[in-house]
Amino acid sequence: MMKRKNSAKERIVFQGELGAFSHAAVQQLLGADVEVVPMLRFEDLFRSLKSGKVDGALVPIENTLAGSVHENYDHLLHYELPIAGEISVRIVHNLMAPPGVPFSKVRRVYSHPVALNQCLRFFEANPKIERIPFYDTAGSVKTIMQDLPPDAGAIASRVAAEIYGARILRRSIEDDRQNFTRFFLLRTPDYLKRHPLRKDAAKQWKTSLVFTTRNIPGALFRSLSAFALRDVNLLKIESRPLRGKPWEYLFYLDLIGRLDDPNIRNALNHLRELADLLQILGCYPKGA
Amino acid sequence: MMKRKNSAKERIVFQGELGAFSHAAVQQLLGADVEVVPMLRFEDLFRSLKSGKVDGALVPIENTLAGSVHENYDHLLHYELPIAGEISVRIVHNLMAPPGVPFSKVRRVYSHPVALNQCLRFFEANPKIERIPFYDTAGSVKTIMQDLPPDAGAIASRVAAEIYGARILRRSIEDDRQNFTRFFLLRTPDYLKRHPLRKDAAKQWKTSLVFTTRNIPGALFRSLSAFALRDVNLLKIESRPLRGKPWEYLFYLDLIGRLDDPNIRNALNHLRELADLLQILGCYPKGA
Repeated sequence: MMKRKNSAKERIVFQGELGAFSHAAVQQLLGADVEVVPMLRFEDLFRSLKSGKVDGALVPIENTLAGSVHENYDHLLHYELPIAGEISVRIVHNLMAPPGVPFSKVRRVYSHPVALNQCLRFFEANPKIERIPFYDTAGSVKTIMQDLPPDAGAIASRVAAEIYGARILRRSIEDDRQNFTRFFLLRTPDYLKRHPLRKDAAKQWKTSLVFTTRNIPGALFRSLSAFALRDVNLLKIESRPLRGKPWEYLFYLDLIGRLDDPNIRNALNHLRELADLLQILGCYPKGA
Repeated sequence: MMKRKNSAKERIVFQGELGAFSHAAVQQLLGADVEVVPMLRFEDLFRSLKSGKVDGALVPIENTLAGSVHENYDHLLHYELPIAGEISVRIVHNLMAPPGVPFSKVRRVYSHPVALNQCLRFFEANPKIERIPFYDTAGSVKTIMQDLPPDAGAIASRVAAEIYGARILRRSIEDDRQNFTRFFLLRTPDYLKRHPLRKDAAKQWKTSLVFTTRNIPGALFRSLSAFALRDVNLLKIESRPLRGKPWEYLFYLDLIGRLDDPNIRNALNHLRELADLLQILGCYPKGA
């Protein structure tokens, strides 16, 4: 970890442009009093945190429509940066335009294709508005504010409207309101030594881990017995086949409990007897 | 099911443009002798198959980097269209341009942002080439062939190059070769009555199902005992929290075996005793 003055704001890295949904997630979890550092790709987040250039990283781990972000699970395994928090953010798409451009004048709407595709009902109801794909949601707001004639809108987060000074014309135009992304806040082990998480930070804590078994069925069933026999609540279990190794699987597992709870410790010791690999990804306050 | 002449080609619907990776998946699973019908969104595939307008639908269900497509699992539950086959397709990104445009002349490359982001190493090695986001991979090929000056390339599948007559300049420029998408082929129950799947179509068969339990841990552990006690091999298990219903979960499960195997039948009867809901999504030959 590089040394900086204590008075300096924490630097938190996220993937995307300023105003991206990841940026909104940083604000929701840590408030506005942090310095956010946008980066291009997921692995950059892990690298810059590992090297001590930033104090934390916020990475998306699963989405209610699109599933688990396996790439980030892979980085979690590789970089061994502990999870220190979590937050679920509802993905709300807003139509916005530069101030002074009324809805009736909007002829073209820029956004990331995934966002455009999540607002199909809006475009069906407004067939005169053309959809134009753009590199990302927040970047499309930046562009309509700077470079385009006043008939262009963008679809993006509320935070993007604030950052670039756009005015929201239609709120929450997404087809599916059950669109949530869950993020992990990562720290370095060193940071957590200096700033340990307070036990009273939350009523419930979660522990996330990854383990492998050589073969299902017996193996998974026995692995889960380590938890079932001790009444440990599981919140997530997901298998992921290891490519090129038929019948070998990686499992993602979230449970309710803290690592310093003897019951959890016993369960994990039991699992360790049964699993080929067991890696604890972190123990953190259960988020909203 | 609408009646058509027996001699007519089968009509298979997929999501995306002609030349999309889903189109490549149709060819890989069913050969070139089918009529493909591209559609805009996932739900259109289910609707058009349910209404008998097409003979089959090919839907993506999970990707090795991006996880399970929960939206399509939801449609599977709702529309009750049985899975009749599966195929895993490697996502290979190729750089292509109109014939006569050499690599040295390419200054701009169009593609879907997700595809562009999966080829970052290529763009780092070729910093003079600009990335331009487009609505989809196949559509970007169509556009560079028709509308653009001869310095534009596109990133898309080999099938898209064939369909639009583009020439591949660089093959397989994706950063990660472990990028596979698994697709289900769906039929109607009526179609499967008229064209039953032949038992000798494959050595191994898979059965996919969804079930819910009211709470973990005991419930999931006991549910899996239905399979473990009968030595049934599981290939996939994934939990999905039911939003607004804390502690209620949906589980996706794939197992090795056929529904007409008494051992599997007993396991499913046992599971039915334990689960609130159990829905069989299909029994189909294990694909490549």
